[in-house]
Amino acid sequence: MDHAITVTTGLSFEEALQATRERLADEGFGILSEIDLAATLKAKIGADLPPQVILGACRPPLAHAAIQAEPSIGVFLPCNVVVRVDDGGRTVVQAMNPEFMTQIASGAALAEVAEDAKARINRALDAVAAAATA
Amino acid sequence: MDHAITVTTGLSFEEALQATRERLADEGFGILSEIDLAATLKAKIGADLPPQVILGACRPPLAHAAIQAEPSIGVFLPCNVVVRVDDGGRTVVQAMNPEFMTQIASGAALAEVAEDAKARINRALDAVAAAATA
Repeated sequence: MDHAITVTTGLSFEEALQATRERLADEGFGILSEIDLAATLKAKIGADLPPQVILGACRPPLAHAAIQAEPSIGVFLPCNVVVRVDDGGRTVVQAMNPEFMTQIASGAALAEVAEDAKARINRALDAVAAAATA
Repeated sequence: MDHAITVTTGLSFEEALQATRERLADEGFGILSEIDLAATLKAKIGADLPPQVILGACRPPLAHAAIQAEPSIGVFLPCNVVVRVDDGGRTVVQAMNPEFMTQIASGAALAEVAEDAKARINRALDAVAAAATA
């Protein structure tokens, strides 16, 4: 199983960040946290990374169902969606693969949550990838 | 491999949350995000969960080394540390096991990061577990 769902896009980093927020919202995900990792590492240790922001996406009914199925699932919540620029200058959007949850705990309830989450994240990222530049 | 490192503590939820922040700081982790998951699910869908807060812990040199070793590792950053009350009323502190990173990508650099991160998180959580109530 791949650990991440990945798309590349012709959008600029800032355009992709905004489009990712919007397309995740379309699929019912709120953004519970937003970490500018590149700015943090620059400020803390002077490291120069290409732009990278980590969005913590959460669809409350899915998070609730996941916790009911497996109380310790919080260590993988919210679902991280990373927007970054890669070494080749391409804008990449990359989400944690929700199917990872099913490696941790079994059961039909969690499998259903993972499947639903993955389908929604796939749609959101595909929409970002398909978006034309402004 | 277990997906989480878990301790229980005699501290109250609030005491454990504060102790976890402090012991993670002792090990060089800053808290980049703090999500009150129980409050969020209560506000969004009216769900009643026991208290649960997700701390996003990051030790910048480790995060930087991890990204150098595997550019897509951001989907597992920062390292989530969950403080919650379980069904039995016990306070539990639970971190994502950093060794999970080595399931995703191989290489000595990433293994070293994972080992260092795990040792630090183990020490922080053990210190929380050993703390006496105020």
